[in-house]
Parts: sequence; C-alpha cells; structure tokens
Amino acid sequence: MIYLGNDYSYGALPQVLNHLVEINNIGEMGYGEDTITEHTRRLLLNKCGLEDGEVFFLTGGTQTNIVALDWFLRAGEGVLCAEGAHINVHEAGAIEATGHKVIPLTTESGKLTANAIERYMTAFFGDPTWPHMVVPGCVYLSQPTEIGTLYTLKELQAIREVCDRFSLRLYIDGARLIYALGSEENDVTLQDLADFTDGFYIGGTKCGTLFGEALILPGLLPELEKKRLFGLIKRHGALLAKGWLAAAQFEVLFKEGLYLEVGSEAVKKALRLRDSLNALGIKSPWQSPTNQQFFIIPTPLLEPLSKELTFDIWGTPGPSESTIRLVTDWHTTPSDLATAIALIHHLYK
Amino acid sequence: MIYLGNDYSYGALPQVLNHLVEINNIGEMGYGEDTITEHTRRLLLNKCGLEDGEVFFLTGGTQTNIVALDWFLRAGEGVLCAEGAHINVHEAGAIEATGHKVIPLTTESGKLTANAIERYMTAFFGDPTWPHMVVPGCVYLSQPTEIGTLYTLKELQAIREVCDRFSLRLYIDGARLIYALGSEENDVTLQDLADFTDGFYIGGTKCGTLFGEALILPGLLPELEKKRLFGLIKRHGALLAKGWLAAAQFEVLFKEGLYLEVGSEAVKKALRLRDSLNALGIKSPWQSPTNQQFFIIPTPLLEPLSKELTFDIWGTPGPSESTIRLVTDWHTTPSDLATAIALIHHLYK
Amino acid sequence: MIYLGNDYSYGALPQVLNHLVEINNIGEMGYGEDTITEHTRRLLLNKCGLEDGEVFFLTGGTQTNIVALDWFLRAGEGVLCAEGAHINVHEAGAIEATGHKVIPLTTESGKLTANAIERYMTAFFGDPTWPHMVVPGCVYLSQPTEIGTLYTLKELQAIREVCDRFSLRLYIDGARLIYALGSEENDVTLQDLADFTDGFYIGGTKCGTLFGEALILPGLLPELEKKRLFGLIKRHGALLAKGWLAAAQFEVLFKEGLYLEVGSEAVKKALRLRDSLNALGIKSPWQSPTNQQFFIIPTPLLEPLSKELTFDIWGTPGPSESTIRLVTDWHTTPSDLATAIALIHHLYK
Amino acid sequence: MIYLGNDYSYGALPQVLNHLVEINNIGEMGYGEDTITEHTRRLLLNKCGLEDGEVFFLTGGTQTNIVALDWFLRAGEGVLCAEGAHINVHEAGAIEATGHKVIPLTTESGKLTANAIERYMTAFFGDPTWPHMVVPGCVYLSQPTEIGTLYTLKELQAIREVCDRFSLRLYIDGARLIYALGSEENDVTLQDLADFTDGFYIGGTKCGTLFGEALILPGLLPELEKKRLFGLIKRHGALLAKGWLAAAQFEVLFKEGLYLEVGSEAVKKALRLRDSLNALGIKSPWQSPTNQQFFIIPTPLLEPLSKELTFDIWGTPGPSESTIRLVTDWHTTPSDLATAIALIHHLYK
Repeated sequence: MIYLGNDYSYGALPQVLNHLVEINNIGEMGYGEDTITEHTRRLLLNKCGLEDGEVFFLTGGTQTNIVALDWFLRAGEGVLCAEGAHINVHEAGAIEATGHKVIPLTTESGKLTANAIERYMTAFFGDPTWPHMVVPGCVYLSQPTEIGTLYTLKELQAIREVCDRFSLRLYIDGARLIYALGSEENDVTLQDLADFTDGFYIGGTKCGTLFGEALILPGLLPELEKKRLFGLIKRHGALLAKGWLAAAQFEVLFKEGLYLEVGSEAVKKALRLRDSLNALGIKSPWQSPTNQQFFIIPTPLLEPLSKELTFDIWGTPGPSESTIRLVTDWHTTPSDLATAIALIHHLYK
Repeated sequence: MIYLGNDYSYGALPQVLNHLVEINNIGEMGYGEDTITEHTRRLLLNKCGLEDGEVFFLTGGTQTNIVALDWFLRAGEGVLCAEGAHINVHEAGAIEATGHKVIPLTTESGKLTANAIERYMTAFFGDPTWPHMVVPGCVYLSQPTEIGTLYTLKELQAIREVCDRFSLRLYIDGARLIYALGSEENDVTLQDLADFTDGFYIGGTKCGTLFGEALILPGLLPELEKKRLFGLIKRHGALLAKGWLAAAQFEVLFKEGLYLEVGSEAVKKALRLRDSLNALGIKSPWQSPTNQQFFIIPTPLLEPLSKELTFDIWGTPGPSESTIRLVTDWHTTPSDLATAIALIHHLYK
Repeated sequence: MIYLGNDYSYGALPQVLNHLVEINNIGEMGYGEDTITEHTRRLLLNKCGLEDGEVFFLTGGTQTNIVALDWFLRAGEGVLCAEGAHINVHEAGAIEATGHKVIPLTTESGKLTANAIERYMTAFFGDPTWPHMVVPGCVYLSQPTEIGTLYTLKELQAIREVCDRFSLRLYIDGARLIYALGSEENDVTLQDLADFTDGFYIGGTKCGTLFGEALILPGLLPELEKKRLFGLIKRHGALLAKGWLAAAQFEVLFKEGLYLEVGSEAVKKALRLRDSLNALGIKSPWQSPTNQQFFIIPTPLLEPLSKELTFDIWGTPGPSESTIRLVTDWHTTPSDLATAIALIHHLYK
Repeated sequence: MIYLGNDYSYGALPQVLNHLVEINNIGEMGYGEDTITEHTRRLLLNKCGLEDGEVFFLTGGTQTNIVALDWFLRAGEGVLCAEGAHINVHEAGAIEATGHKVIPLTTESGKLTANAIERYMTAFFGDPTWPHMVVPGCVYLSQPTEIGTLYTLKELQAIREVCDRFSLRLYIDGARLIYALGSEENDVTLQDLADFTDGFYIGGTKCGTLFGEALILPGLLPELEKKRLFGLIKRHGALLAKGWLAAAQFEVLFKEGLYLEVGSEAVKKALRLRDSLNALGIKSPWQSPTNQQFFIIPTPLLEPLSKELTFDIWGTPGPSESTIRLVTDWHTTPSDLATAIALIHHLYK
C-alpha cells in the first residue's frame, strides 16, 4: 500500500524520534515547566523575529483551535472563516462546544478575502437588527488553506487592515505551515505571521513529529493572564503532562532549518506528482503550490485505486467524476511517487 | 536532582519507546482506524474479560475525564465525587466547561463510600426543592485515589448497588491503575472494573508510556452511538491523528504482563521508601499501599530538600509541619531511593 | 405613529389583561405547581387531541427554543434549519451557547423541504469523513415561516418521514402559530402538529398575551425525565416564579376559541393591506397568507415613511429598492390600515 | 389557605397592575428600545446616585444571575459564593451551564466575610498548583442573604477591598433587596451598592411585580460593549419582546418611594410574626431582620400545618425538629398573620 492519503500516516522524522530516545532518561518537570520547553519557546520566538511572546505546545490541531478561539473570543462572539474551514466542517462542532458560532463566508480559491470580510462586516453593522445577531470577534484562516492554496503577504496585510477596522482578532491555523514555508510561491514568512496576526500555530503532527502543535501569541501577557491561558489549556484537556516531549520535537525541526527542508522536499515531490499526472491528461481542479494535490478521475477508478493507494475524496465535480487528494510528506519516497503514477496510468489504459 | 515528585518525569519505558521506533516506518490509517489500534483494543478487552466493548485511546487524563463524563452525563446532570477528586480540584473547571456541575462529597481515607452516596441521594430526593437542584447522573471514583488508597472489591460492589438504586452511572479514573493492580493489598481486578462500572480508563502517561490513556466501555454500542462517541472525542480535541501511537504503547504494556511488573515494582519501591522513612521517625499521615507515599516533615526542611529532590506539597497539618508526596515509577532506581533517604536523614540531624 | 412593525407593540388583549386583574389576589403555588397551570395544561392537550403530554409555559421564543433544543439534542448533535431561521440568525448564538451547531439549509419560499433534508442527510452519511462532522439530531421548522409562508400537511408529513428515516427529532417553532391556524390557506391543525412532531410551541407574546409560550411535548415523560426537563428549564433561567401568569393568559386564548378569532382577524387585515398596496402597484416579493406582509418600495421612501409608521426592513432586492415588512395583530384597527395605506399612497405620488 | 411560603404567591401590587392596564394601548418599540424603559432606566440610576450606568430589565432572578456572571466572568474563571447561595444550590446548575465553576465558601450567619474570601484567595495563590485550578473572577453575594440576614456597610466595604486586592469583580443578587432597604437594621443604601459593586440587581418578582429584575451596572459601557451585553441577554433567552412591561412595573415601584413602603411594611409584619411566635416559645434558629423568618417546630406538626398554611422547610436541626420558613410580602394581611399565629398556637397545645 502506498500512503498518499494524508501527511500523518507514519511515526516521526528519524531525527525527531532519535532525539526522543536520547532524552528519554533525562528527568524533567511536568506540564511544560521544564527547560526543554523553555529554550524551544525562545527558539521559536527567535525564528518568528519576536523578542517576546507566549508559546504553548499542544497535542493536535483541533485542540489548538479550541484553545486559541476560546482565548480570543469573548462570551457571545463568533468566528469568521472559509466555508470549507476545518473548524466549520471537520471538527465535529468543537468551536460550538465552547459556545461560539462559526460563521462561514464564501471563498476564492479556498481563501477568505479582505473584501469578503469587509462586505460581511459592513452589511452586519448596517443591519438594524445586528445586536440580535452573533458579533464576529475573530477571523480564522488556514495557511496553506484546506485545498492547498496560499495567502500572499499582500492578501494577509489587507485582511489585517480589515480586522483592525472592525475590532476583529486574526488567528491562523498552520497545521501544514511548513508546506507553505517550503513552497516557492510563498511570500509569507514566520515573521510576517508574527507581525500580522494575534496568534497562529505551527503544526507538527502533519509535518514530521509524532504529535504536537506550537501555539504562538506575539507579545508577552501579564502574568495573571498567562496563567489564565494555562488554565484554559488545562480545562480543555490540552495540557500534556510530559510537555517537553512536544517541545523537544519542535526543537529538532527548528534548530537548524530542518522544517524548511522537510517542507520544501515534500512540496517538490507533490509538484512532481501533479506534473506527472497532469501530463497523463489527468486534470487538477485548481492549482495547489503545496503538498496537497487534487485530481479529477473517473469515479469507477476509485475502487481499484483504493486497493493499492490511500487517498481522500474531495467531492464529485461531475456525474461520473471524483476529485481525489494526494498528499506528500517527509516519508514519501521517489519510489512511492513512481509506483503511484504507474498505478494510475495503468488504470487509465 | 532525584525525581520523586511524580510519575511522569521521564519519557517512556525502554520497551515502549523501542516499539515506537520499530513501527516508525509502517504506514497506518489515521484517527484510530488502523490495525494496531484494533488488535490492542481486542487485547485490552481480553484482559478485562470482556467479549465486547468499546476502547478508545486518548492522550491524557483530564481529556479522558472530559470525554467520558460528557458521554455519561445528560444535559443538566452533575457528577458526584470525592472532595479531593482530580475533576473537582485540579482540572481547571474542565467538567464545568462542558456544562456539568461537580458535586463533592466528604470522604474516608480519600474514598467515597456507598453510604455517603446513599445519604446524599436520599437527602436529595427527600428535599422538596430537588427539581431546582442539579440531579447527579454519575459517580466518579479514582483507583487508586488521589492519596494513594484503594477501593476494595466489597466497597466497589456496594457503590455499584447504590448507583443502580439511584440510576447513577459509575465511572473510574485509572490514571495510576497499574499501581493498584500491582499492590499486594488490592483485590479489584480489571475484570471487576469491567463488571462493576459503566466505564473506566487505564492510564498510560503515569505508568510508563510517553502519553495515552485507554478508555474502556464494557459492551458494544450501536453503530450510530459509537460514531457519536467518536464525534465527542473529536469535538473535545481528543482525537489523535496518529492514533496507533497511543495504542502501540498499550500493546507493549499489556501483551505479556509488563503492566503488572511495572506496577508491582514501583509499589515495592514506594513501600521500601515509606518503611525506611517511617523507621527514621518520619510519619506518614495515612497509609498508602500504592506508589504515592506521604510524609510529614518540618516546614523549614522543604527548601533545602527541594534543591536535590523533587516532591509535591500536600498541605500543612501543623503550624510548622508540611505533608510532602513522594512518588515512584518504572524509572526509580534503588540508588534514587537510597540517595533520597540519605538526604532526608541528613536534613533531620 | 402607526405600529405595523411587529406583532408585539402593545400589551395584551383586553380579555387577557382583565383575567390577570381578576386572579391577582388568588394565592398560587410557585414555579408552575399551581392549579391554573394544571388545568390550562389539560386544556391545551385537549386542543391538540392529546390524551397525555407535557406542557410547559415559558416566557419568550428564544428561551423556548433554547430549552427545547437542549432537550432534544444529545451532546455533540446539531440542528438542521432554514437559512433564515430565527435560531440561525436572530438569537445571538443562543443554540451554540448550549454547545450545539446550527446547520442551515437553503429553502424554497422560506421553507425547508423533505427533499433538502434527505439530500443533506444522504450526502452526510455518504461522506466517509462524517464521524468528524456534526451529526444532525433534530430538524427545526417555523410555522408560519420567518417570511410568513406555511407548511402544508403534505409537506409536514414528508418531513416527518425523512426525520424517521434518519433518526431526527422534529421540532416546530410556533411563535406566530395562531396566524397559521387563522389562515384560510392552512391545512395543518394543532392535532397534526401533535401527531407529526416531537415537540412544538404555541406562541403567546406575538399573539396577544403580555408574554408566554406554551411548549408542548406529546406523550408523557417518565417522572424522573420530566423533572430533568424541569431542571433544564430552571438552569436556562426560564422557570417563571409566578408560573400561573403565563398559563392564565393561554387559558383565556384557548378556552373558547379566542386564539382562532384573533389569528383569523389579523390575517384578514394583513391580506386587506396586501391587496390594497398591491392594487396601488406596490409589489410583494412573495405571497404570504399570514399576518406578515412584505412589500418592495423605493429606498428613498423609507425615511419619510418611518416618521409615521413602524416597519421592518427585509433586504434590498434592487439597487434603489427595499423590502419592508408590515405586520398586523389583535390591536391593528381598520383606521390603522387606512392611514397606513393612505400614507404610502401619498408618498408614491 | 394562608400563603406565607414565599413572596411570590400573588400577582402584583394593585398600583403596578393598574399601570399595566393604563399603558396597555400605548404602542412601544420592542426589546427595550422604548421610552418607558429609557426613563425608568434614568429613574433607577438617579435613585442609585449614578450619573450614568447601564440598566437592563430581565424577567427572573436565575436568568439575571446567568447574564450577569456570564458578563463578569472570563473563560475559565469561577465565582465565589456562600455555601447556601442560590447559584450554588437552587439554580439547577445554571452557572455551570455557562461553563463556570461555582466555588462555595463557608459562611457566618449566611454571609460571606471579607476574611473568608481573603483566606481562600491567599491559600489559592499560595498553592503551587493553582494554575491547574479554577481562578475565581467574581464574588457573588445576596442582600438580604438566603436566610434573611443583612450585610452591613462596613462588611460590604471590607469585601470590596479584598476584591480589589485580588482582581475580583463584586456582584450582588438583590432578589429581595427592598426588604433589606426596608429593614431598620439596614445601613446599605442603593448608592452604596452602586459605589461598592461592579453590578447588582433590584428584584421585582419577589417585591410586588408580576415579574422583572433590574440589572444595574454602574458606569457607561462603550457602545460596542453595551451591544455585546445586549447580545448576551438575547442569547440567554432573557430579552423580553415587550421590554417596557418590566420597566413600567419598576417605574411604579420607584417613582415615589413605593418600594420602600412595601419593603418596610413587609418587614414589620415579619417581625411581628417572629415576635409573636417567639413569645409562644417557638424559637428562631437565627435572627433575621427582613421579610423571611425561620422557626424550629416539632416535625410532626409539619403535616397538619401544611393543610392551612404554605411554608418552606429549611432543614432538620434535631431528630424530631424541623426549621420552617415563613415569608411576608405586600399581600400579607394582619388577618393572615393572626390566623397563622393562632393556627400554630393551636397545634402546640
């Protein structure tokens, strides 16, 4: 079986796992009060060009979104996002479970636009009944988006400006951030994210760690506020007892630029896969410059294909057509790609 | 530094970590839909003497309590527990965050008693205003308790009977369950837990895994209900993308009885520590037959002690006395114990 | 000022208010444990053709929706409704505040269709990722709809069948129910609502009482479940201390058919208003057979109109056109209608 | 039957109900956007010695507590209160339903003390594990307390000081506030409440209105914050469509001092009842200077007494003794008192 269904089909990058083995017998304080967490925190702040800020290492993406949005939103506020956003579709109502409405907007190429946000907010405050409606308090973006596309720096700046105009916080889900950072088309750096958002997270789970996401909040919180955030993490069951295990994995990824290497390698493989399949006449429904690639194939091919290759289905653009998603990561080998291409080619004959 | 402050100061049992290394390059399906999860599920059911049942592998204890109680409690119901219960004191309001009241009862030796539950429920339904009050829907116990004591089988049976009488579900937090199973004083088996509760979890984090807790629900759920539980796990951010990583660690612990060995070894070390310190005239405020031991020491010793030994403080029984907790686990060496004892002995001179 | 902006601009029907004056000095038990509540409960069950069932008298519509949906939905479930549904737009996130996602579907003439529900549920369970998504547990309808249209008996039956097929409960918001019952086009009786839904409410606030909505749940609940529902009402702050005040108002409405008279008179006035304005060439964007009527007028007329008439704005169908809503009720006089028509006629000149 | 079981057994003060009749045909804007609400708002601010502040008219006490605490508490915070506090015992988990823990403290004469709060907060921040615990964000008091006692101005000032020291907001439940204001022992004025709290409510339901509570927040909120509070009210189902009905009742109570008259008359009757029964040798378990009075009677008398008198039971101080509560209000007549006293006297023979 070739695993291209997602970027979380294998354990961890060898360097990451080896490091966990190396530190296995070093005693640490629990709940993130350890020295590994502390210096990884400083390492990430440094990569983000931040003198100061809060960094918390959580376990998974949905969990991080729950914590971040429960932090950013006040009682009664909602969050604006793309229709296909993870928080709107695939988190089983996690945000609503904290009492907040998720408000989806239509997108272009999977992206929210500053214009769409502005239109919504202008119409909202223009509606005399708005106090009876959920007031948006935050904008949620994913970089890359759910369909692999990228926000440009200009787009991000424009969104920030609209957020400022309407007192909206801006939060970015970076579950696959290294594949944005590793894409040649990308012009948004970690520093830009630190500059233009109120918070974002750098994903680990989909980027070569066993688990772990690093939530970054630019700027230091007052001590009591920081502890309240710690408490929020705890009360959402997101506080890892052996907190250093998550931090240590990020340390390996970020100490010497491994994250960039892993990201750009995976993207290159993804583009190779795309180009090869496109060359076979298999169309992509949209252009993705990152590690997720999408292809339209005849629906009858799904079943034979699924016997040798994992993939996800992303809708049915035509009566007998299906869109599939193939994803590369640190574990994808040239041989995996060659086999997958040959396999699909063979089915097309 | 000697780490006796808790049982989560080191990575994982070597066998556990080695196994993760072994399976690192085996591709698996995400979200617990993999084969490792499936056969570990069967392994645990088997150990519990269950033909069928649901097993879910989550990340941490608070998270597992959130999921289990949100599953067991219906809208408006509350949960009865000991005053010092983890859910009442140290989970930052996690249960309340799901909308349910935590109702603490006074305890004997850290344990809820069938009598105390019965008295509460009888008084509750005897109060004409009870429909204005939170109806208890579940009883939460910890085995061992927060202070290291154990429920006997007879006590557990009696509690089950009271629960049945008042339509209460019974749930047990087994964060340190292997230290109960490994204690010579224990007479409650995994099968008993499966027989007498509506659900319980077997802890991994405090028992030698990197992370992970196995939630066991005796009996099969209808398919749609099972999926709703899966959804609850997801919406609490508790669904691990690489679910097999948690399951695989439990497989190592349970395949050949390692859990019992780890549990009983740690308890033996704990009792040795207790006996040695008691012999030095250092009193224990209560008898614990498991891996947590408690000692009353002069408060001025806390500071010098903390320079060489980690420990937790459990109250101040006298004006110049403090109770400290020392905990053993798989990583505690005879040399750790000897050093700790010598250290304390020295301070007493 | 002529008040046609809504059906809650005046106190209560004289008969209703007089009755409150009559019973003002009769002592009653609190919290709905009184005799007035009990016999009004029986009166309403009787009108619904129910031998038994639960009836609770609450204060307002949003409150009743909160209680009913928190009752019908289990942890993690969501509610399907029309895009423009009150719970989706104008309740400030009340349903999300109880942890449940509101899932809007597109409508025809303001109505959900059995087909739309079936399509959604079929696609939902056909999506292999559905366990990561919010499972719909209930369908919410309004009769009449937010835009004044009516479900036919055939439509309601078809929706019930789809609900049964997919284990969905069916709940109807009847804030303006008497205007459905009083419409000549209506073929859905109170008995039909009792037969085809799991619960519905009969509105009072918009139908001539000071306040109050009667939540009807066909069939008796077991005693403990009934008390749990009582507790849910209490914990949502919806339990009226002087519960009989709400019940007594419903008694006046329903004892001798006053509700039908009030409903049909208001609808007749509404249709007269519609016909007169349509005759002046002022178009209605859709046909409403109930007490809410909608008209498209030039946007520049809004301001002068608002000086003498209250109305609500329902969107801008064209660049210089606005849709306004005019509503009749028990208090609307022939003179109000004549003045309003003359006023608009005058502005058109 | 003599109704002394509570202060909500009858409709409304004649003056209040008459006023509702008078304004029944005056059209008003919905949702509190009317002129009656506006000038009653100014009237209450004036009585509180406030130049500016927010005033919202809600329906009931539990509802008002839900709204106020959801407003005052941030995500994760809890509320400190007396053990017997309404929010802790008799609101069916309403505060927990909004995600916040209720933290009860022991009391003296039913009152929280500044010392008890200080001790709790000092111990809390002294516990090294406090970030794992619920951080108190607010103190909840009732004036009068659940058992009829009164905070003195000095006590209130001391509590405010402790609150300031620990960043706690201070909120007072005034369901029976007029009976404090009408008590000769009282030295806390409306102005004091406005000076020393972050918010409080003046009860109507138990003080002679059909329903209604006036939530007072000293100081003006920024416009967007005010609208967010409006939205919170809406999303808790607490926004009355005919908002003026609640305000109008408060106007009658406060325009010319009726509230003081009603409060002091009821207290006088309560004290007469107390003195008469005490003179018969029937003891009060504690001294209440307000409209709730408590008496210890032989348990076998409960049943015969309940046939002619309504009362509440407040525990069983001895094996064959019960404490009952008798309550006076605007409707209690000298004849009610005489009959009740005679009745009890007779049973004692």
